Amino acid sequence: PVAYAEQHESDEEKQFRRVFQQLAGDDLEVSPAELMNIMNRIIGKHADLKTDGFTIESCRSMVAVMDSDCTGKLGFHEFKQLWNNIKKWQGVYKTCDKDCSGFIGADELPEAFRKAGFPLNDQLFQMLIRRYSDESGNMDFDNYIGCLVRLDAMCRAFKTLDKDNNGTIKVNVEEWIQLTMYS
Amino acid sequence: PVAYAEQHESDEEKQFRRVFQQLAGDDLEVSPAELMNIMNRIIGKHADLKTDGFTIESCRSMVAVMDSDCTGKLGFHEFKQLWNNIKKWQGVYKTCDKDCSGFIGADELPEAFRKAGFPLNDQLFQMLIRRYSDESGNMDFDNYIGCLVRLDAMCRAFKTLDKDNNGTIKVNVEEWIQLTMYS
Repeated sequence: PVAYAEQHESDEEKQFRRVFQQLAGDDLEVSPAELMNIMNRIIGKHADLKTDGFTIESCRSMVAVMDSDCTGKLGFHEFKQLWNNIKKWQGVYKTCDKDCSGFIGADELPEAFRKAGFPLNDQLFQMLIRRYSDESGNMDFDNYIGCLVRLDAMCRAFKTLDKDNNGTIKVNVEEWIQLTMYS
Repeated sequence: PVAYAEQHESDEEKQFRRVFQQLAGDDLEVSPAELMNIMNRIIGKHADLKTDGFTIESCRSMVAVMDSDCTGKLGFHEFKQLWNNIKKWQGVYKTCDKDCSGFIGADELPEAFRKAGFPLNDQLFQMLIRRYSDESGNMDFDNYIGCLVRLDAMCRAFKTLDKDNNGTIKVNVEEWIQLTMYS
């Protein structure tokens, strides 16, 4: 089925596959260092996004949460999912940065996260600001992307674990460590 | 009771309090940037610990998991708990770096984590190596400390949530996001 799907890719998908092959190198997997280089090359072209750059630490965390098959790197489909999210969330960032400061301010955050797909309550927004924003309450682009990549992964993990869809999950200690440490 | 305890501190505790007051500055709380400066000053004095330095990202993560009262910074007791753990785990690092490479190699990791208080199974060790070690399987000092600070906090969180001590915890989506994102 994978070979069949590859033969029937659209032109956009074929182009994305060529870009992926260049980025990923010979092993056809994107490592944290490769992801960092790509991200920092892209933000260099967008002067309207304030950021101090993606660190290897934040790229390791993003790779870990997207790494469904536990290879330590991102294969084609894992990377594509990440890429499409980043493109979408970058658009939201620009739309929600109403005062064109280059940051998402504390007052802009709820709308940005709602548009990104995460309508959280006020207590959770305060927590995200404490963890990912600077001391003035501004979230820069690398923290915003790192935060959303993780939030998205954690919400998907919760849905997968909540098999009977009753709004609570039950985990044992091994599952807990696996889920919270590989992120 | 806090005032009473402060009057009856040992000399060691009094000395630690003076050091803390210098580090924490006027607000008497250690911020992620203050923690990064302290950690990088210390590792500068230990040439036998290989590290590329503590990043602000890893210090934000360490502050978040130790920040019991949700101020975004570490107060005296939160910082003291972190500090005592780091001192203990630094000793373990040196003891377990048998080949004196300055790293904890994949073969040295299980003993190091057992001595640090975390006897995990093989699958979890493989996951930690994938997330926190380099491509040769070596864990450097900043990743080792970042990993242990988080692992310790996650194990403590599990124990607190496992009220009936039956080895599983039940969490709803708000609790899940709070626990996994503030780390």
